[in-house]
Amino acid sequence: MFVINKDSFLLNVMTTLYKEDIIMYMSKMFIPTLREAPNDADIASHKLMIRAGLVRNLVSGVYNYLPLGIRVIENIKAIIREELDNKDAQEILCSALQPKELWEESGRWSDYGKEMFRLKDRNEREFCLGPTHEEIFTNIVRKEITSYKQLPINLYQIQTKYRDERRPRFGLLRTREFVMKDAYSFDRDEAGLDKSYKDMYDAYSRIFDRCALEWKAVLADTGAIGGTGSHQFMALSDIGESDILYCTNCDYAADREKAEFMLDTADDAEAEKPFEKIHTPNFATIEEVGKFLNEPTNKIVKSVVVRVGDRIILALIRGDRELNIVKLCNALGTIEEYIQMASESDIEAIGSVPGYIGPIGLKNAEILVDSELTHLKNFYTGANEKDYHLKNVNYGRDFTGKVVDLASASEGDKCPVCGKPMKMERGIEVGQVFKLGTKYSKPMQCNYLDENGKSNPMLMGCYGIGVTRILSAIIEQHHDDNGIIWPMSVAPYKVIVVPVNVKNEEQLNAAKQIYETIKQNGIDAILDDRDERAGVKFKDADLIGIPLRITVGKKIGEGIVEFKKRNESKINEISTDSLLEQVNKAIALN
Amino acid sequence: MFVINKDSFLLNVMTTLYKEDIIMYMSKMFIPTLREAPNDADIASHKLMIRAGLVRNLVSGVYNYLPLGIRVIENIKAIIREELDNKDAQEILCSALQPKELWEESGRWSDYGKEMFRLKDRNEREFCLGPTHEEIFTNIVRKEITSYKQLPINLYQIQTKYRDERRPRFGLLRTREFVMKDAYSFDRDEAGLDKSYKDMYDAYSRIFDRCALEWKAVLADTGAIGGTGSHQFMALSDIGESDILYCTNCDYAADREKAEFMLDTADDAEAEKPFEKIHTPNFATIEEVGKFLNEPTNKIVKSVVVRVGDRIILALIRGDRELNIVKLCNALGTIEEYIQMASESDIEAIGSVPGYIGPIGLKNAEILVDSELTHLKNFYTGANEKDYHLKNVNYGRDFTGKVVDLASASEGDKCPVCGKPMKMERGIEVGQVFKLGTKYSKPMQCNYLDENGKSNPMLMGCYGIGVTRILSAIIEQHHDDNGIIWPMSVAPYKVIVVPVNVKNEEQLNAAKQIYETIKQNGIDAILDDRDERAGVKFKDADLIGIPLRITVGKKIGEGIVEFKKRNESKINEISTDSLLEQVNKAIALN
Repeated sequence: MFVINKDSFLLNVMTTLYKEDIIMYMSKMFIPTLREAPNDADIASHKLMIRAGLVRNLVSGVYNYLPLGIRVIENIKAIIREELDNKDAQEILCSALQPKELWEESGRWSDYGKEMFRLKDRNEREFCLGPTHEEIFTNIVRKEITSYKQLPINLYQIQTKYRDERRPRFGLLRTREFVMKDAYSFDRDEAGLDKSYKDMYDAYSRIFDRCALEWKAVLADTGAIGGTGSHQFMALSDIGESDILYCTNCDYAADREKAEFMLDTADDAEAEKPFEKIHTPNFATIEEVGKFLNEPTNKIVKSVVVRVGDRIILALIRGDRELNIVKLCNALGTIEEYIQMASESDIEAIGSVPGYIGPIGLKNAEILVDSELTHLKNFYTGANEKDYHLKNVNYGRDFTGKVVDLASASEGDKCPVCGKPMKMERGIEVGQVFKLGTKYSKPMQCNYLDENGKSNPMLMGCYGIGVTRILSAIIEQHHDDNGIIWPMSVAPYKVIVVPVNVKNEEQLNAAKQIYETIKQNGIDAILDDRDERAGVKFKDADLIGIPLRITVGKKIGEGIVEFKKRNESKINEISTDSLLEQVNKAIALN
Repeated sequence: MFVINKDSFLLNVMTTLYKEDIIMYMSKMFIPTLREAPNDADIASHKLMIRAGLVRNLVSGVYNYLPLGIRVIENIKAIIREELDNKDAQEILCSALQPKELWEESGRWSDYGKEMFRLKDRNEREFCLGPTHEEIFTNIVRKEITSYKQLPINLYQIQTKYRDERRPRFGLLRTREFVMKDAYSFDRDEAGLDKSYKDMYDAYSRIFDRCALEWKAVLADTGAIGGTGSHQFMALSDIGESDILYCTNCDYAADREKAEFMLDTADDAEAEKPFEKIHTPNFATIEEVGKFLNEPTNKIVKSVVVRVGDRIILALIRGDRELNIVKLCNALGTIEEYIQMASESDIEAIGSVPGYIGPIGLKNAEILVDSELTHLKNFYTGANEKDYHLKNVNYGRDFTGKVVDLASASEGDKCPVCGKPMKMERGIEVGQVFKLGTKYSKPMQCNYLDENGKSNPMLMGCYGIGVTRILSAIIEQHHDDNGIIWPMSVAPYKVIVVPVNVKNEEQLNAAKQIYETIKQNGIDAILDDRDERAGVKFKDADLIGIPLRITVGKKIGEGIVEFKKRNESKINEISTDSLLEQVNKAIALN
């Protein structure tokens, strides 16, 4: 029951409240909204986060979270905790400071490169600021867990991570200090790991659903973390930095870094023709050469020469394909940071000429051959001689090399499972799950004793969610020209009560009563008691994206207020008698 | 109503629960208890935190928090948030990474010394890991707040701080990475600051009361943070690192670093006698000299020579007093880290001899004179000549210097307010409030425009609580030989249900039902379903300190269980019918 202007009701409010909760009055709240986003804000969520007063940038890739931002983050954290606790994961909290020695045990101290912040303490002992916590969790578990009886165990934390990104950008999507949930599971065998992995996969699915994200789980590369299998959870968005390939027929979906495709075998039956050297003056690009030869680019092989330390490597792929840097890293057993494009002198050192590189007759170069080339017949390559190409080259007959997967899948390529064409979309990576296997437990001797007293390494999984990144992803998917449209589940406040004219006592008092009543029903609400024009207040309410707006204007004398949902344009006049019911209904619908 | 062995009740439990909440079964929980504390655990709380599986040490001064530890910390955080929100403080979250430039604006980059962790990013830009956040909060507010209409404002965060302590120790009491609540208030004038300060003082009083700490608020030195006034909140404890002086008559209480006392003026009326040089061979200490001369040590003046950079300083205090290093720092305008004891050659350079130093005839030394010496007559000092002292020395007549407060107060000294004797106790500093005034707002130009359009610096306060330190302080005050005794308000779980024999199905099932019923009533509980002897389970329950224990044994057939409070030795047999009522009563009492 909701009744305005009844003494009994007012009395009730005043006696049950510990104090008048003025901090949710907007005149007192620290919500510094802006009409314009700063120039360096590059995407919608970044602009809106700044404009709505959720965050402020300190230096490149480092943010401060203001009250509205914190509230959304706390809501996201609560959802994550509920779903993980439901899967019997247990929360702990580890330090960001991590000693070098642990990273040397896993072999990653030197591997991690410049992305790791490193520092020394007053005694010159070396530390990093944890970019991730495999070593720390493994160290805890190896000291405390000794028996199969204590397994499985899944531990998680919600903690601040540090990664010195080369190019921080896109607001909270790529930052150097960010909040992450990371979990680590420990099992006695593969079957246990499979179950732990599935539990986390299911929990993640619920978490992203509850955060109202449109998302896809895709096969992913395991990268520097390592391991035997991985899925990324991608929030679909045009501004995402990840490309996702997915089948239009079956449920295959993969990150483009990882995506495979069915190889083109059209040439398999073609007879190998005699090898020729041809004059191709002044044509440096694949396209130019193709045009001159009147051949499609998929008949010309692209040669890319790179250097990793002292190694010089020639990578060969079909001319219409893109070299996949992650697949190249995996083939070379290195990370992207250590791969350099070869210099002219490097190319000369292996007996070639820039623009005319090919596999035949090279010296001192490792040759990587994309597996598709083993199905291609009578193709062209550079002749390692200025202004010349070779024609009718064939793998096996004319050259060999290490056959690996090097090419990126593209829209239209055939699904590796069912052969139907794939589509490509962009996504924001909001989570990733990994099967680590024994990658960390073996070198760090994280072992358990089985029923027979035999010592075995534990099988580990690790599971990350970018908490602050979710904030950005939600805004990318839920906004319009006027501002953010928070999903009810994470909204900083569910209801905003706006008196049209705060100088009108009847309106202001009624608005206060409505606000108090809503709060007493356990619903987070704010009151815009600022002495501003209604238009300004509506604009701010839209900008900060509160899902439900109640406007208290002239008709309050008749017991009528306006009720508007942020995600609908319609404004309903409703009686204050039914207001609480309407609010509850709108919340329950979400 | 609480009924065991009724189908209707069981059905009710099973249908309302989303799933069987097995993670609160101790057989699954990660609570690695230990019979013995490690050798390096130095105080009761440190030993018990390790033994009860609350925390694990990673490296010196760096801890990982395990599930029970996290739960207590979250309870403490919730109390802090409630009390601060009640005072209209607003939560934000700032980064630990802080750029050097901001600290140069405040002048503290070079002041902070080795306690600050410093690092460089991949572009060689310098950062610190925030030991405190005055600069960051001031920077936020100066950019967003421009008008008196937006003041006052009080912002806080609960965040991880970094201080590279010279000697980390005492478990969570002195660590290098720790969780702190820090708040910063911004006001237009002194009256506003006074109110903000009092609000925080009151909130802190409630917070420490609710954490069940026995505490005292004491006048404190403002130290490196700077400012015009400060109180520390001390949890009383023999292992505390702070000495507190308090009056037995009035309400004066101060940290020993800061404490004043009424100067001894007994000599004021004494006539000054003729100055003499006397032979005092081979007596180096004040005590030895006093014995030889047959004079009390309060008639001999102690000379301490220190070096700060190029400055050499002689500090003089009465022989029975202790030199107060904080008062010395304040007199010299420096921090402890920069004060060195003078070397022999330093002492020679000012024309003196170790063991026989005095103020008369020194060259190139600054002389600091403890104010009490201006009331002392006919005292002894070193003669700056081997084996000689001077007798009947008098300040003013024989030498002068800068008169300052240099001596530490001791038990029995007279209260500076009312003159009655003071007592001394030890305390753990769990919080501190500061009036900063314009110390940061002036150099950082954190200004507001007043009604007349005039720009003024804001008046700031800052307010810290050591969240993880509270954990230690609570355990120090609430434990016995068997383990921790958690106060209800912060207990990780309020109730532990212990079936005596888990192989007895009746006992185990009844215990599970009791556990579920308690949880359904919103009370945090755990079930010790481990197949261990009852004695082992009782020992663990005592060690981890759960306030209420319900033991389900043989009498469950008659509907009888044992009910025991952790802080009482008495065990009550009660009927399961009244169990929930008893639990609720015990919780309400606390």
